[in-house]
Amino acid sequence: MTSDTESRPAAARRGRPGYDQAAVLDVAVAAFNEYGYDATSIAVLAERLGISKSAIYHHFSSKDALLETALDRALSALEGVLVSSDAAAVSAADRLELVLRGAVHVLVDELPYVTLLLRVRGNTDVERRALARRRAFDRSVTELVGRARDEGSLRADIDVRVVERLLFGMINSIVEWYRPGGPEDADQLASDVVAVALDGLRQRA
Amino acid sequence: MTSDTESRPAAARRGRPGYDQAAVLDVAVAAFNEYGYDATSIAVLAERLGISKSAIYHHFSSKDALLETALDRALSALEGVLVSSDAAAVSAADRLELVLRGAVHVLVDELPYVTLLLRVRGNTDVERRALARRRAFDRSVTELVGRARDEGSLRADIDVRVVERLLFGMINSIVEWYRPGGPEDADQLASDVVAVALDGLRQRA
Repeated sequence: MTSDTESRPAAARRGRPGYDQAAVLDVAVAAFNEYGYDATSIAVLAERLGISKSAIYHHFSSKDALLETALDRALSALEGVLVSSDAAAVSAADRLELVLRGAVHVLVDELPYVTLLLRVRGNTDVERRALARRRAFDRSVTELVGRARDEGSLRADIDVRVVERLLFGMINSIVEWYRPGGPEDADQLASDVVAVALDGLRQRA
Repeated sequence: MTSDTESRPAAARRGRPGYDQAAVLDVAVAAFNEYGYDATSIAVLAERLGISKSAIYHHFSSKDALLETALDRALSALEGVLVSSDAAAVSAADRLELVLRGAVHVLVDELPYVTLLLRVRGNTDVERRALARRRAFDRSVTELVGRARDEGSLRADIDVRVVERLLFGMINSIVEWYRPGGPEDADQLASDVVAVALDGLRQRA
């Protein structure tokens, strides 16, 4: 995704040749995930990229700005799933299925960015804003589970808040073992999640 | 569980009055979870407990021995679920349901110990042995999912390894939000997990 900078028009690039904003961000997110955000300095990033610190500051005003851009990418992708499911489906149950499938795709497509998001603990203003957006997303999904239950599509004996947590606990756990290029592609993985969560593993009579 | 040391016979205690081995372990596990294993020294534990370092060494020969005992507690409880499900149930599907319910109960009953286990990354021999036992547990559950599928109880279109990961991804995520004394008790939580995972959320026609 970021290795084909050669094919982009030169005018679209900022900073030193070969390192546009997206490439700096990819390297930063990989380092944050490997060493932790606090332990990763701009100097370490500059060394990894083989560029100067000021070349990084050309793209991002601070380490916090890097983090904010990275977290926004994961959150915007997840929020986009809610928006597009709203446009596509009629029943709440169908929307919920689209949201679960879409979230699996976001996780696979933006694996390092979602991994970073899931590690945020709220230590800074940037992290607290990201957590607030994640909570708003969770609330929207919880409401959707409630509507699907109220329309009679989902069983009535469930606590919608607990179920939302279990569903996203399951989906988020994928970051711990999924590796791109493995035997399981995103479509199959999304189908497995729906099989477990909505249809149930038990064979129907 | 550890605050009622007063009611135990004095002969059962080791070390200074009020701090038996279990109490030292509880405090150590809480500190490991809060600050990380590497960042927690025996000196920090001694300060937290208000006892000397040698009083801790009276119970545990090293920090590694503390970690090993703590991880063994979580792993033994999980392995016990497999053993007791084997004795209780006939079909593989019934066994799987017992394992899922039992694992939720272990998680609730041994929350700090399971939390510690789930953070192990394999940096030391003790951690690597714990990871090997966890993998053996996961393999046993994966085999059980496979047998339940082969006996016709579970749908045939699933990847048993992915399903096992999704099931325990969901169960393990409970450590991130479950707090003892909350509105959801362990039985209800176990039923919610089974509702999501085995029966499926969708209302059956």
